[in-house]
Amino acid sequence: MSTRRARGGRAARQAARSVGVEAPAYITRRVPVFQSVDDATLELVEHNAETVLAEIGIEFRDDAEALALWRGAGADVDGERVRFPRGLCRKLIQDSAPGEFVQHARNPERSVRIGGPHLVLVPAYGSPFVRDLDHGRRYATIEDFRNFVKLAYAAPEIHHSGGTVCEPVDLPVNKRHLEMVYSHIRYSDKAFMGSVTAPERAEDSVALAKLVFGEDFVEHNCVLVNLINANSPLVFDATMLGAARVYARHNQATVISPFILAGAMSPVTILGTCTQILAEALAGMAFTQLVRAGAPVVFGTFASSISMQSGAPTFGSPEPAHVLLICAALARRLGVPFRSGGGLCASKVADAQAAYESANTLQMAAMAGVNFMLHTAGWLEGGLTMGYEKFMMDADQAGMLRRFLEGVDSSVNGQALDALREVGPGAHFLGCEHTQANFESAFYRSAIADNNSFEQWEAEGAKDAAQRANALWKHALAEYQAPDIEPGVDEALRAYIERRNAEMPDATH
Amino acid sequence: MSTRRARGGRAARQAARSVGVEAPAYITRRVPVFQSVDDATLELVEHNAETVLAEIGIEFRDDAEALALWRGAGADVDGERVRFPRGLCRKLIQDSAPGEFVQHARNPERSVRIGGPHLVLVPAYGSPFVRDLDHGRRYATIEDFRNFVKLAYAAPEIHHSGGTVCEPVDLPVNKRHLEMVYSHIRYSDKAFMGSVTAPERAEDSVALAKLVFGEDFVEHNCVLVNLINANSPLVFDATMLGAARVYARHNQATVISPFILAGAMSPVTILGTCTQILAEALAGMAFTQLVRAGAPVVFGTFASSISMQSGAPTFGSPEPAHVLLICAALARRLGVPFRSGGGLCASKVADAQAAYESANTLQMAAMAGVNFMLHTAGWLEGGLTMGYEKFMMDADQAGMLRRFLEGVDSSVNGQALDALREVGPGAHFLGCEHTQANFESAFYRSAIADNNSFEQWEAEGAKDAAQRANALWKHALAEYQAPDIEPGVDEALRAYIERRNAEMPDATH
Repeated sequence: MSTRRARGGRAARQAARSVGVEAPAYITRRVPVFQSVDDATLELVEHNAETVLAEIGIEFRDDAEALALWRGAGADVDGERVRFPRGLCRKLIQDSAPGEFVQHARNPERSVRIGGPHLVLVPAYGSPFVRDLDHGRRYATIEDFRNFVKLAYAAPEIHHSGGTVCEPVDLPVNKRHLEMVYSHIRYSDKAFMGSVTAPERAEDSVALAKLVFGEDFVEHNCVLVNLINANSPLVFDATMLGAARVYARHNQATVISPFILAGAMSPVTILGTCTQILAEALAGMAFTQLVRAGAPVVFGTFASSISMQSGAPTFGSPEPAHVLLICAALARRLGVPFRSGGGLCASKVADAQAAYESANTLQMAAMAGVNFMLHTAGWLEGGLTMGYEKFMMDADQAGMLRRFLEGVDSSVNGQALDALREVGPGAHFLGCEHTQANFESAFYRSAIADNNSFEQWEAEGAKDAAQRANALWKHALAEYQAPDIEPGVDEALRAYIERRNAEMPDATH
Repeated sequence: MSTRRARGGRAARQAARSVGVEAPAYITRRVPVFQSVDDATLELVEHNAETVLAEIGIEFRDDAEALALWRGAGADVDGERVRFPRGLCRKLIQDSAPGEFVQHARNPERSVRIGGPHLVLVPAYGSPFVRDLDHGRRYATIEDFRNFVKLAYAAPEIHHSGGTVCEPVDLPVNKRHLEMVYSHIRYSDKAFMGSVTAPERAEDSVALAKLVFGEDFVEHNCVLVNLINANSPLVFDATMLGAARVYARHNQATVISPFILAGAMSPVTILGTCTQILAEALAGMAFTQLVRAGAPVVFGTFASSISMQSGAPTFGSPEPAHVLLICAALARRLGVPFRSGGGLCASKVADAQAAYESANTLQMAAMAGVNFMLHTAGWLEGGLTMGYEKFMMDADQAGMLRRFLEGVDSSVNGQALDALREVGPGAHFLGCEHTQANFESAFYRSAIADNNSFEQWEAEGAKDAAQRANALWKHALAEYQAPDIEPGVDEALRAYIERRNAEMPDATH
């Protein structure tokens, strides 16, 4: 257990101080959530989702064990199609899944609370490409992966190291998960995600985590959060089911996420999409509870619309915002944590399109009451590309979300009547006592925004936000200091990885 | 009255069709407003604002008539300082100010409803500079002014022609209001704003409006909305009071807007700023009701924070978002329409900073329940610059706000159970009957976002959003067709302007 009292708090605090912020390990919201529809509409979606589960059902493909579990639970199993008595999935979830849980980080100060009024901001996930201003777009490598782990570690408003922050395509397909998990452990001390691309890779992720946290600790606590996508519409495949089973068995968290491009993988309407998402999420979450009652599970949603002209996914648009808001409310009614949102965009570069689209979804996710915001920072091009400059921009927005969700100070100092009395009509507040006492913490301070005069901005090179962000990520990497790790733990991790690498021939797919 | 049955509906509809949208003349929200604090906090601000009004008071400068009105109403007038018995201002407003009203456009199809569940999106206001990608930043001219009137006319999701969309500095200071008002009338048929820079310019604005709408109509209906800024903290000056009096006397609407850079012109805290804003707005709105009970008046707020390092204004940040949300709730409790928000940013160019900041405030203003959103489109550089590309980007976002606020279709078609039944597990929805029936209107379609593949985007020149927006405004101006106007009305307007110009020597300040 001593390894959990990890080092690296110092370096993390230094990194935080370097941008002038002392941010908490996660956000605890003090403003209400925004609900966009009335309860009757939510009840309608719940009713219709039960109709989908009962009449149409969900396919659990190539997984006899899953089908046996469902048969045992009282579902109607017809080939691979499972139909569920009304209320069965909901009951399985509500009987045992926790409403909120802690994901432990190896630095206990960085452990995060997932669910309830809490919000954990997590880097983007899954891009095969990276982009920066200097080299443009290229396939990601393990060096890029490590860079993003380091940038997330240094970012005070990003709470989590993420998972596949980019896909290190220079490593063999069947081995890269080992270096990814190792990088999260070695180059950060924030919480991270395990591999889901095969059940044995999930087992490797758990095994590596046990070397850090201790075997017994892992079996009784959540140290890995893992992304399980449904194969929408209405299908779970063997890969995802296998990984979900591994994690649930080890009491680790899964995020059951229908991945929806509405109009292609779900109906074109908002409520039709929400109905399908709820049905898929209910079936997937209930499955984890059949594997191990009480295993932490998160209601996940990734929903975008598509261009009905080209079929291309679109982001930051109003219809997916409604889907997000409704699904968040459905998750609250179900009593489980909710994952959605992020700095989603279709733009190829970190331009105004990227920013409008990202801001729209970041704001809506914060309003909706998301608990685990995958894809908070770095996302470009519908998730195909992880952007260095984009990461810094989104991480800056993350701080604004935190500050917004902290709410309003209604103390006597917050009311500031004395300041109004002191200054009076026609004067200014810059020098008054109340301003002097409060100015340092009064306003969120962006690291990227240029608020100077036009003349000063021009004299400094007339840089746009992407150029300023470029300097910031380079500075962060140059200043990066790895958190300490116990040498014995590091050796054990490397030994495990070398043994596993030696056991497997390289695979390319 | 025949002139009000104006032409130009055809051209406006053509302009709308050219971008594939049939947008309503204004938005009627069907989603709830978001309230960020509890009612007790709002009551606290209301109590404190009354304390400010009673103990500190407001200065009405260089305006004996205003002081006399206040004395007559029972306020305590000490020199230019007016102190108000608790509740006086609120009572004056609630006794007579309308909760919502119609501002008539010369095309009746374009008249807008201000207040209640309605939202009117209005161009940015007041910039001395303009910027486009081709020529960079330069002083605005009357040609730029006309261009923005034309662009707002052609923008289906911008509901209003605005006021000083940019400052035509090539015209004499004392005459430019005549050409501005004329341009709004001649080059658009949407509603517009009058001049407030001097009482006689306000009178000119009313006189020109009467030539279009008819004298009697103007005295009984709102055809002008006019921006009256407080001289924060706690001062109204003679210019603003004079203009407000002219408009209120003629039954035209005023927007009483404390213009706040928090930390300089108000306390650094959220509630301190809200308290001051409410006190100033109450005094200013009550003043209009003393001038003419029942004259339409809007509670306005423009609040930004400042960088406590440089003193520069900052935008899109979390603290002003809270101010906006709280003031919107205070306006609802008072029972008057509310103005705030817009595509506010500090960025000098239409880059990612501009877009993040603008989106943050646009989203929050829509959530808050703003009724009249000045500065919706075009704003750059803290309002110093009106951007051609930025205008097109923000106008695109305006459509997304509209679509979001229209809410969720919960009809049988919206629920889409038949689509789920038809498609079933593992198939796709692209070809299904429900998708075919709904795809054209299913998703908001951005005119600026590029959602194509990386390869296609690169083949098309790897353009960023600003470059695409550049092509769009040029296309819109090239396709622009002026709405018809009755020749007699146009002649009367020109004759009035020529007479007024002949009466005054040019002034340069």
